[in-house]
Amino acid sequence: MSTPDWVKDAIFYQIFPDRFANGDPDNDPPNVQKWGSTPTAWGFQGGDLRGIIQQHDYLIDLGITAIYLNPIFLSPSTHRYNTSDYYQIDPKLGTMADFHDLVDCVHQNHMHLILDGVFNHVGRGFFAFVDVLENGEKSGYKDWFHIKNFPLNAYDDGKPINYLGWWDHKSLPKLNTSNKLVRDYILNIARYWIDQGIDGWRLDVPNEIDDDGFWEEFRKVVHDANHEAYLVGEIWDVNSRWANDRHFDGLTNYPVRDALVALLQGRENATQFDARIEALLNAYEHDNLLAMYIPLDSHDTERFKTMVAGNIDKLKLAFLFQMAFPGAPAIYYGDEVGVDGGKDPDSRRAFPWNENEWNLDLRNWVKTLISLRKRIPCLRRGDFIRLLAEDGNYAFARSLGEDRVLVALNASSKARRIDVPVSKIGWKDGHSVKDCLSGEKHVVNGENITVNLPGWSGVWIG
Amino acid sequence: MSTPDWVKDAIFYQIFPDRFANGDPDNDPPNVQKWGSTPTAWGFQGGDLRGIIQQHDYLIDLGITAIYLNPIFLSPSTHRYNTSDYYQIDPKLGTMADFHDLVDCVHQNHMHLILDGVFNHVGRGFFAFVDVLENGEKSGYKDWFHIKNFPLNAYDDGKPINYLGWWDHKSLPKLNTSNKLVRDYILNIARYWIDQGIDGWRLDVPNEIDDDGFWEEFRKVVHDANHEAYLVGEIWDVNSRWANDRHFDGLTNYPVRDALVALLQGRENATQFDARIEALLNAYEHDNLLAMYIPLDSHDTERFKTMVAGNIDKLKLAFLFQMAFPGAPAIYYGDEVGVDGGKDPDSRRAFPWNENEWNLDLRNWVKTLISLRKRIPCLRRGDFIRLLAEDGNYAFARSLGEDRVLVALNASSKARRIDVPVSKIGWKDGHSVKDCLSGEKHVVNGENITVNLPGWSGVWIG
Repeated sequence: MSTPDWVKDAIFYQIFPDRFANGDPDNDPPNVQKWGSTPTAWGFQGGDLRGIIQQHDYLIDLGITAIYLNPIFLSPSTHRYNTSDYYQIDPKLGTMADFHDLVDCVHQNHMHLILDGVFNHVGRGFFAFVDVLENGEKSGYKDWFHIKNFPLNAYDDGKPINYLGWWDHKSLPKLNTSNKLVRDYILNIARYWIDQGIDGWRLDVPNEIDDDGFWEEFRKVVHDANHEAYLVGEIWDVNSRWANDRHFDGLTNYPVRDALVALLQGRENATQFDARIEALLNAYEHDNLLAMYIPLDSHDTERFKTMVAGNIDKLKLAFLFQMAFPGAPAIYYGDEVGVDGGKDPDSRRAFPWNENEWNLDLRNWVKTLISLRKRIPCLRRGDFIRLLAEDGNYAFARSLGEDRVLVALNASSKARRIDVPVSKIGWKDGHSVKDCLSGEKHVVNGENITVNLPGWSGVWIG
Repeated sequence: MSTPDWVKDAIFYQIFPDRFANGDPDNDPPNVQKWGSTPTAWGFQGGDLRGIIQQHDYLIDLGITAIYLNPIFLSPSTHRYNTSDYYQIDPKLGTMADFHDLVDCVHQNHMHLILDGVFNHVGRGFFAFVDVLENGEKSGYKDWFHIKNFPLNAYDDGKPINYLGWWDHKSLPKLNTSNKLVRDYILNIARYWIDQGIDGWRLDVPNEIDDDGFWEEFRKVVHDANHEAYLVGEIWDVNSRWANDRHFDGLTNYPVRDALVALLQGRENATQFDARIEALLNAYEHDNLLAMYIPLDSHDTERFKTMVAGNIDKLKLAFLFQMAFPGAPAIYYGDEVGVDGGKDPDSRRAFPWNENEWNLDLRNWVKTLISLRKRIPCLRRGDFIRLLAEDGNYAFARSLGEDRVLVALNASSKARRIDVPVSKIGWKDGHSVKDCLSGEKHVVNGENITVNLPGWSGVWIG
């Protein structure tokens, strides 16, 4: 069992392609909206692959080393989870040449790129579904789906869906992955894009393809093409089934976010937080933990900042935790400059390229944390050692060889003086350590280090 | 004004891609039918591009120099006139690599290849139509079509069509070619495939894009990419509007077929036949006449053999006329071995590769006529001089420089002795000429040459 080394060192940046940067206005759809318009489900704002290439300096400056792109294949929607053609870059995002330029740009800058693999369901424009729409029972592709009767009520709102769709959405016909032809079709896609240079797949709702054999085969096909490819499953709960050498290297570890939100909204205390964190740490092998994808939020959630009612201290504290936690931290585009966003489509606002709109203090904070994480190996590769969980106080350490970093959080609105017991990590009375950010000196006193933390703040000491 | 030289010397072969040859069973759709099954609208039989490549020797042996392929782009139908994606070879027909192999094979054998350009309408799987289906009034592509109201009743048989479709077919949404974006889209397709190596376009129902400016632009774009490219419009009547230097080099000259069918079914006599032929010869410039595409039938008609109730003499006579007529003769795949076929889909039967099913006498006849046409320049480039039209007797000559070929037809069931007046072509009393096929000698007697023709037969003398 091994997970890709590069992931353990990675800082991910998630990009919703229509909303990050518009590098080529010529490929905008006819009804493109003004950049920064209030997001709607249907309104394209013109973001594209060329925009990402143009802004790669921005990403490098922030410290990003890996990009996860939401779907980029041909689709009639802004989110593109209803795929029309898995082999075609959506022309609104660019051409195959643009895509190869992006891959080259990413790799030349020692970054990695993963794409969104949406294989549970397709869009109504997918060739095989169109074939069934057109040919009905005579279609050679009727067994590619789960069809109850013909003709399909695919577009008539007055009639109930008569095929399986994801969450009963008519717009998302579920593929029949027990059909060998469908499996082969998906496996060929998986391999094709690895061959085009991507470094892995984020698998959309993979638990809905409830078939261990399929995913084992998928993993093999991808690894045959690139044995360093990363596979990360979109799994929302703590579930050890999906992170192992027969499934995915890591999962989109939303339970970390859930724990942070509950803690920082004040709905749960540090003990409850601890229980959540322990549960997920215990669920997976160490190698998988280091290869988890750790988001604070995503296109599918409210923005973290919005969840904590715009409290920047809380957001900074969440970043501080995330950047010290096992697994690759993932920044949802714009979070680093303080973009707000409620439930989708609001969470998919256009990135504000006018720097006057940025929270520079926040961005510097994120940048500093990233830079420290890159400098301090134990933050990336170390063991996780829980040290303290009571009230709003939580502390842990990362430990690798002789190196330790202690992380302490004050998850309350009041300044607190916190005694963190450090004997577990071998720090003895009189041992001197420093605040990783401020350089302030701390000395172990007996079995504890004492930190004074303002409300909603934390510290890295090592 | 000039039309492509190569067309004037061309012998076309029209291939309905699903039914000519299955070269790669691996790309067959899941429900592929047995080769040779009774054709249905929906039943794929597995023909593909690799099959054409494999059978190129067959075409060369027959004397073919140019191929016209019915649509080959992604589509859910066997005819593929409802295009899903103009940039994608239908995977059931092959890959882009197969296509390039076909182009190479064709060119290496000094042949030419033209594709079917279906730009008046699209299929319901076309991305822009899917976009309107999905996004309704919010779609950026609603102006790509002619939509009366939303939502589209595209698949619900219980509701009337509420957008323009070709002949009101819901499955064939008409493009709005007055929209500049649509025009540019089409022009880019036209150029793209020329750049991929094709030698021209057969334009489907171009009169339904009733816009001279568009076609002038189309011609320019194509000629900028390849000034020897051939443009042939699917025009069913005699109509000089469409064959000139602002439209197409030639037309699919069905009126020739119509005249032959009427004559050989005995519905019209040689005088009426003559009137039809004169009308169409008078409608066009000489250079366009030489660049006409002259079919006896096609995927859209009954087979000629079937129209003449299986009478092979009549079919051979039709070939004899066609191969001596101005314009490039076009053989609909299988006609040369005697394949039958009523109205479509019956006219689209699979080619019988078992030679026991071939009419070898017919095939040799066609092959001989082709070979002679290639040897005798005036049959391809010469002027057309009408000599005789009365009863069932019809005669004309082709004339180029000093060369003449006289063509005489006995379009009746009885043997006839026909005196053909030849002074118009400068043949004087005592002048000696030969039957091009049999070598039999003829001598001008006074102002005539006398030929003895069995029922439903003809002769080339020169």
